[in-house]
Amino acid sequence: MMTSPVGRSGVDAGAAPRQVSLRSVHVEQVLALLRSGPVSRAELGARTALSRATISSIVGDLIDQGIAVNLPPGPDRRAGSGRPAQAVALSQHRVRSVGVDFRLDGASVALADPLQQVTGTISRTHRRGLNWQDRTTIALEAIRTLCARHGVDLAAPQGIGVGVPGPVPLTPSGAPWRVMVHRLQDELAAPVYVDNNLRLSALAETIWSTRPGPASLLYFHLGRGIGGGVVIDGRLYRGATGSAGELGHVTVTENGPRCHCGKHGCLEQHAALPALLRRAGLTGDRRAVDQVAADPRLAGPLHDAAGLCGRVVGDALAALDICHVIVGGILAHVPDDTLTRFTDAARERLLPSIRGALQIRPSTLQDAGALGGLALVHHNTPVLQGYLVRASTSYESTQQSR
Amino acid sequence: MMTSPVGRSGVDAGAAPRQVSLRSVHVEQVLALLRSGPVSRAELGARTALSRATISSIVGDLIDQGIAVNLPPGPDRRAGSGRPAQAVALSQHRVRSVGVDFRLDGASVALADPLQQVTGTISRTHRRGLNWQDRTTIALEAIRTLCARHGVDLAAPQGIGVGVPGPVPLTPSGAPWRVMVHRLQDELAAPVYVDNNLRLSALAETIWSTRPGPASLLYFHLGRGIGGGVVIDGRLYRGATGSAGELGHVTVTENGPRCHCGKHGCLEQHAALPALLRRAGLTGDRRAVDQVAADPRLAGPLHDAAGLCGRVVGDALAALDICHVIVGGILAHVPDDTLTRFTDAARERLLPSIRGALQIRPSTLQDAGALGGLALVHHNTPVLQGYLVRASTSYESTQQSR
Repeated sequence: MMTSPVGRSGVDAGAAPRQVSLRSVHVEQVLALLRSGPVSRAELGARTALSRATISSIVGDLIDQGIAVNLPPGPDRRAGSGRPAQAVALSQHRVRSVGVDFRLDGASVALADPLQQVTGTISRTHRRGLNWQDRTTIALEAIRTLCARHGVDLAAPQGIGVGVPGPVPLTPSGAPWRVMVHRLQDELAAPVYVDNNLRLSALAETIWSTRPGPASLLYFHLGRGIGGGVVIDGRLYRGATGSAGELGHVTVTENGPRCHCGKHGCLEQHAALPALLRRAGLTGDRRAVDQVAADPRLAGPLHDAAGLCGRVVGDALAALDICHVIVGGILAHVPDDTLTRFTDAARERLLPSIRGALQIRPSTLQDAGALGGLALVHHNTPVLQGYLVRASTSYESTQQSR
Repeated sequence: MMTSPVGRSGVDAGAAPRQVSLRSVHVEQVLALLRSGPVSRAELGARTALSRATISSIVGDLIDQGIAVNLPPGPDRRAGSGRPAQAVALSQHRVRSVGVDFRLDGASVALADPLQQVTGTISRTHRRGLNWQDRTTIALEAIRTLCARHGVDLAAPQGIGVGVPGPVPLTPSGAPWRVMVHRLQDELAAPVYVDNNLRLSALAETIWSTRPGPASLLYFHLGRGIGGGVVIDGRLYRGATGSAGELGHVTVTENGPRCHCGKHGCLEQHAALPALLRRAGLTGDRRAVDQVAADPRLAGPLHDAAGLCGRVVGDALAALDICHVIVGGILAHVPDDTLTRFTDAARERLLPSIRGALQIRPSTLQDAGALGGLALVHHNTPVLQGYLVRASTSYESTQQSR
């Protein structure tokens, strides 16, 4: 099932019901029961209405995969007369999924156990322009360090969800990060799922955002480029060509400057960081986005850009009928009045019905890309598709262990 | 489960996996097997891995509901030694779902049987402005006439999917058509699901379009107003407030004429039929949209409107990343060069990746709203959620029986 060298994020909204085999629905049901605590095979049968042979086969597979373990039969587990009823439990000492976010200047890693709890996260920085071979080495070291820190076993994870900068083509044969995919796959013996890291940040915001995240949201990121993602009902919505929610190339001026995409007057040509720096006479500036956001010389261009971005976001919200926006990159660090300019511009484009429900807030989640990678694995794994969809706040309690 | 007086279309994209109980997944599996022909209970058990008690209970319920029938045991059905293995089959003589489309000047009705085949459709016209009581009487008469024509039994259908013109509020307590909902519910003893009829047309296009319909599409309708709908992966996508794909109120001129929605410069104020007639000096014109489309006095305004509409549709396609558009209303009847103007304007707004895949075509489906009503029932019924999603062309073979 996962034989393709590069497993991609193919979980479009609504696709799940048709893709899930009945077997995987049954496995999911067994896993759901196991997540609430140790259970005997007989109880599993009684509570799922599945035949004894089916339960036995599913539990056997889970144990073979290291996801579940047989608990030693204790005296309290004995049935009335016969042999002891052995209970099955999920293992907390195995890594079930790995999330990796490759940024331009570093990598973040997150691990989750079979109970879907985030074991921990770790972050590394490196110089820009490092090759993919070295970046992969850094990520692998970070993964192993994190496993050692938490005393968890990395053998045969379910998958590795990876975020990369820039567009992720539908046929990634020529992608520069192919070497990374092959090495992670070979060294960790698990399928690798790749998606754009801003998209994964969007997914993470719905699941691990400190407030209970909205099930549907638009993530809008303003930086050296403009990117983002759409989550519909807890799942990443990619669209037909993988560009849903990519608003950088919406036309904002009919005869504007030519964009690298081939069109004219794209939002990115007017509002992304290079355009802002150019307008402020600061070309060559290589500072991080949070420093840039506070520069008074950029306040004017940024204020105008916020209005343009808000307008484009507003039109996208109208088409998608989504009420929640999370802004990342520069917009997560701008002064309040600039964010208000963005919000007002978006609001003006909306019907009163959506306008009243509009909520726009800056991203606050750390390691969002890596956390989104964990969700990507689960949404691509039939057995786990139902998990990590509009989940509870379980991550918050584990953040202390970082 | 369906106790609310007005069952609404609440099946958003991606919502299905969480809403489906395990029981309903099992029922769906049993129904899928029954759709391929008569099957014994033992075979059902062997092919679903469900326990004998579960199969027996599901089949019992289906028979009680009139969806399935016990076939008389013939000699060929006898097992080796024991009592005959009685086969179960779906009934083709029951109405499983009813679709009704209330237009301003008439109503269309469609029926489907438990095998999900469209039994037939029928259409009625009436004068504009008729009250909902009388419109409901006409629809009920049409339903009963259609049942009699095909010799099918209407008792206890699974549900009635109804399309109405205009927006369908999230809390429809003040909707003018409430009387219709209560009467259909009472007289047909089934839950009623209501949605906008253009949205239902969009849904019908993916399922019963003469070419195999695309799984995701934007339906754009230009008439006295501008409406439409979005289908994502075979399911109606409504959005947070039920206005996904409603593009009539996208701002196209910053300081344009005031719209009834409260905003300024909405597409509807520039491109819908009243605006076109006004520009051509033809106010008071009450002709049907197909007549209007051919009027040479409207050719100029219509050409301009097509460009504006295309621009708005293009931006929506970019945000949604959808490549298929079906145009209805006036745009389904315009000369080729006007449709080309629409298509070109949309194409210009798109990234090359989507642009290459763009397909725009006029709607050709008859009784689309009523057929969409059938799909609405199935998408709202847990047992049948998996059906009528990007379905085959089974409707074409039954169209002859109309």
